[in-house]
Amino acid sequence: MRKSELVQFIKDQRSYLCVGLDTDLRKIPEHLLSEEDPIFEFNKAIIEATQEFCVAYKPNLAFYESLGPKGWISLQKTLEVIPKSHFTIADAKRGDIGNTASMYARAFFDVYGFDAVTVAPYMGSDSIEPFLDYPGKWAIVLGLTSNAGADDFEQLELKSGEKLYERVIQTVASFSSHEDTMFVAGATRTEELKKIREMLPDHFFLIPGVGAQGGNLEEVSKATLNDSCGILVNASRSIIYASNGQNFASAAAEEAKAMQVEMSRLLKVYASNAKSQD
Amino acid sequence: MRKSELVQFIKDQRSYLCVGLDTDLRKIPEHLLSEEDPIFEFNKAIIEATQEFCVAYKPNLAFYESLGPKGWISLQKTLEVIPKSHFTIADAKRGDIGNTASMYARAFFDVYGFDAVTVAPYMGSDSIEPFLDYPGKWAIVLGLTSNAGADDFEQLELKSGEKLYERVIQTVASFSSHEDTMFVAGATRTEELKKIREMLPDHFFLIPGVGAQGGNLEEVSKATLNDSCGILVNASRSIIYASNGQNFASAAAEEAKAMQVEMSRLLKVYASNAKSQD
Repeated sequence: MRKSELVQFIKDQRSYLCVGLDTDLRKIPEHLLSEEDPIFEFNKAIIEATQEFCVAYKPNLAFYESLGPKGWISLQKTLEVIPKSHFTIADAKRGDIGNTASMYARAFFDVYGFDAVTVAPYMGSDSIEPFLDYPGKWAIVLGLTSNAGADDFEQLELKSGEKLYERVIQTVASFSSHEDTMFVAGATRTEELKKIREMLPDHFFLIPGVGAQGGNLEEVSKATLNDSCGILVNASRSIIYASNGQNFASAAAEEAKAMQVEMSRLLKVYASNAKSQD
Repeated sequence: MRKSELVQFIKDQRSYLCVGLDTDLRKIPEHLLSEEDPIFEFNKAIIEATQEFCVAYKPNLAFYESLGPKGWISLQKTLEVIPKSHFTIADAKRGDIGNTASMYARAFFDVYGFDAVTVAPYMGSDSIEPFLDYPGKWAIVLGLTSNAGADDFEQLELKSGEKLYERVIQTVASFSSHEDTMFVAGATRTEELKKIREMLPDHFFLIPGVGAQGGNLEEVSKATLNDSCGILVNASRSIIYASNGQNFASAAAEEAKAMQVEMSRLLKVYASNAKSQD
């Protein structure tokens, strides 16, 4: 999906919500466990219930991988029921030498048909570039993450005065474009989000950490929304596990709708172009 | 596999060779393509031919992932034909927040039964610790890699005077042990290998980059061998694609044997305990 299409869809939906499909057999409603493929049945119901309130879905691949080969079949079937209008992100955090990164790109873009894949930057440029060779596909590179461990390395101060995450973002932005690369920027770090937006006025950011991890939607949006929206805010557990009863899908829809209503308001207040469309 | 078992096996085999199973449908001999599962048939023949010369196998997961769900079945079948005596490494380079890292650990250790998984450190301690909760299993954390892109971030100088990769290695070593954690250290960087060995006298290093990537086995071994060997040297393409004819397995065996013979000599020269066993 090209950037212009994504921006238009965000305007149409008045939402920049990404629903994270961190689907865990131990957390889904018990009544689904008798289904042949409980993970798929859960995802399908969640997708049907939430699609009018969000613009993207982000399966967290660890959850599928932990089920062995059949987890990947559940993932494949899940992708088939996501509407073509919606942006799909393989939350994979892959990163390896060039010939291996090419194989990962092939896996997520060609075999599974995702629009984007999250990529870990540690190994440098040749671990990222193979993901940029697919027109209309995206690398979403880890910048500053929302977890406590982000302080261990991402926040280290370099001799040059920058922090590591700032250097990562600037280096990766220097060999890619805002038409093929986004950055992960955690919602728990509002001050840094402002700095990152100043560094990269035109890029999209994928912002996890709103909800279960404690990030505040309005603060995050105020710090990062730009003329073309410029952010996808992910919520996983707070939506998909809103209820673990028979009503799990409608409960998820309510949570997603509440976020969409708030996002619609925030777009009017903080994103100028989006405002002019209303 | 506990460290003492690995060290003993290295002494028994007089080898610290790890054979990388970067198995690519486009590179395996044509006559295998008519098999029901060519990837598995190739791996099985390679494993049978090379097992007496090596101590470990390292499937590169990108190659399996790029085949869709059936690639994971090929991987599972491959693991079943690796002898229990041999150390198995999932070359996955995973790294994510704690609850997700736990799912990856479960996938590789419980579901597939690997002894070790390679882990990317960018997201910090909570992305690594879940892999340390499995007795007898290993995290192999990226330290300094062998690719050109390693200069982009791993080699950055910190305000404190260290390089990023040095800080990564020391920080990770501070919350783990040489009984559960190894580090990836690329064979193309001999001077740095010496420094890393000085920093960590007791740890095992997984050393890729000998062979196709240009690292020299004797230099690398001289810089890093310790009393309990302390290294696994990986070769992938130079062994498994030694021939793409009917004789591919015997050609792989010859390459592996040549490396084992050289390793046996290097153990005598540079690893004192190993020497005393001879």
